[in-house]
Amino acid sequence: MGENRPFDILNSSLNKSVIIRLKGGTELRGKMTAYDVHMNLVLQDADQLENGEVKRKLGTMLVRGDSVVFLSPA
Amino acid sequence: MGENRPFDILNSSLNKSVIIRLKGGTELRGKMTAYDVHMNLVLQDADQLENGEVKRKLGTMLVRGDSVVFLSPA
Amino acid sequence: MGENRPFDILNSSLNKSVIIRLKGGTELRGKMTAYDVHMNLVLQDADQLENGEVKRKLGTMLVRGDSVVFLSPA
Amino acid sequence: MGENRPFDILNSSLNKSVIIRLKGGTELRGKMTAYDVHMNLVLQDADQLENGEVKRKLGTMLVRGDSVVFLSPA
Amino acid sequence: MGENRPFDILNSSLNKSVIIRLKGGTELRGKMTAYDVHMNLVLQDADQLENGEVKRKLGTMLVRGDSVVFLSPA
Amino acid sequence: MGENRPFDILNSSLNKSVIIRLKGGTELRGKMTAYDVHMNLVLQDADQLENGEVKRKLGTMLVRGDSVVFLSPA
Amino acid sequence: MGENRPFDILNSSLNKSVIIRLKGGTELRGKMTAYDVHMNLVLQDADQLENGEVKRKLGTMLVRGDSVVFLSPA
Repeated sequence: MGENRPFDILNSSLNKSVIIRLKGGTELRGKMTAYDVHMNLVLQDADQLENGEVKRKLGTMLVRGDSVVFLSPA
Repeated sequence: MGENRPFDILNSSLNKSVIIRLKGGTELRGKMTAYDVHMNLVLQDADQLENGEVKRKLGTMLVRGDSVVFLSPA
Repeated sequence: MGENRPFDILNSSLNKSVIIRLKGGTELRGKMTAYDVHMNLVLQDADQLENGEVKRKLGTMLVRGDSVVFLSPA
Repeated sequence: MGENRPFDILNSSLNKSVIIRLKGGTELRGKMTAYDVHMNLVLQDADQLENGEVKRKLGTMLVRGDSVVFLSPA
Repeated sequence: MGENRPFDILNSSLNKSVIIRLKGGTELRGKMTAYDVHMNLVLQDADQLENGEVKRKLGTMLVRGDSVVFLSPA
Repeated sequence: MGENRPFDILNSSLNKSVIIRLKGGTELRGKMTAYDVHMNLVLQDADQLENGEVKRKLGTMLVRGDSVVFLSPA
Repeated sequence: MGENRPFDILNSSLNKSVIIRLKGGTELRGKMTAYDVHMNLVLQDADQLENGEVKRKLGTMLVRGDSVVFLSPA
């Protein structure tokens, strides 16, 4: 599988800002401070986004891995 | 995976108020008094929210982990 | 995980009235007389609810655990 | 978990009439003549119901357990 | 679980005509010539049905078990 | 389970044209050149179909097994 | 299963441009630089597509395998 593994991107994104898309279409942006093998994630200073605009401030949050569609460094 | 694990946020939220978003979009707010490895959760004095307003009082409740999308200290 | 476990609420609700919300939004109310580790449940004298009103009497029923969203003592 | 188990209701319903609700909302009524640990079920003389009326006669059928939402003796 | 098992109906339906309902509501009718423990099925001379009428001829087909809702001898 | 197994149809379809229906209703047609036990499939010269007409040419593609509803030799 | 395996196409697509279709219909295009056995994927210089046009630039991203429907070298 080459020298890179997908979870490397999680490790290199620790304590950095990421955008997360959830099943159903909701998008979140925040600083990722923890993850596990199920892709459960913790975000700090998180915002819920709508069309790229902040819709709601959520602060600290735990996102369940099986709800994640993709994650992108912001 | 760094020194933090996602479930630490569950432990630090015990007996504190949290907001939970469920698959389908329903949101709940209540004091979380128990959780397990499947992310099954118990809330006390829980309310069902709609646009941030209380829609219904539910009191004590058991939330099934696989219905959880995210959890945020309230 | 503290001294409480989520399934304690199932045990303490045995032979008492509970409200159950199912995936898809259907709600049921009845006396819970059995459960198992999958959260499969038996209700007696169960009603299907709509906006808190009785829509249909279902009597005894077996509810499949993976259809349950939450359970609340009624 | 007390002295009752949810699957007792399957055993006591053998060769009796039951109503089954499936994911998606379809309801069936028939005589249950077999089940297994996955809640796969066999119905005899089964009807598909719509608002409690017979919509279609299906005779003998095998229902896949993971499509079942609830089962109620009819 | 009594003397009958749900999969007996699969065995007794081999090389006979069956109707299959899939998640999403599509229905198929054809001669079932193979199945496995996952309920993966092979149909020969299969038709896709709409309101009981033939909508499309599909011939031989492999149906994935986790798409099956129910199966009924036709 | 008789002498035939559902996966025999995958083996006998290798390097032949097949139609695949995916969850959500999308249909693909192409030459199947590989499969595995999860029903992950490779198609060559694949087209996306709409009402039996070619909607888009996709060439080589890997289809995830858990998205497959059925497969039929074309 | 013949001499080819579906994951060969992932290996031969490393560091090349691919199109990915996700559950829900979203399509992405980017250079795939990593994958694992769950089909979790990393894309570089990724774009979100709509009707084949670039809708949004996403840069680096981790796509969760269970959201993937198909992957095609672009």
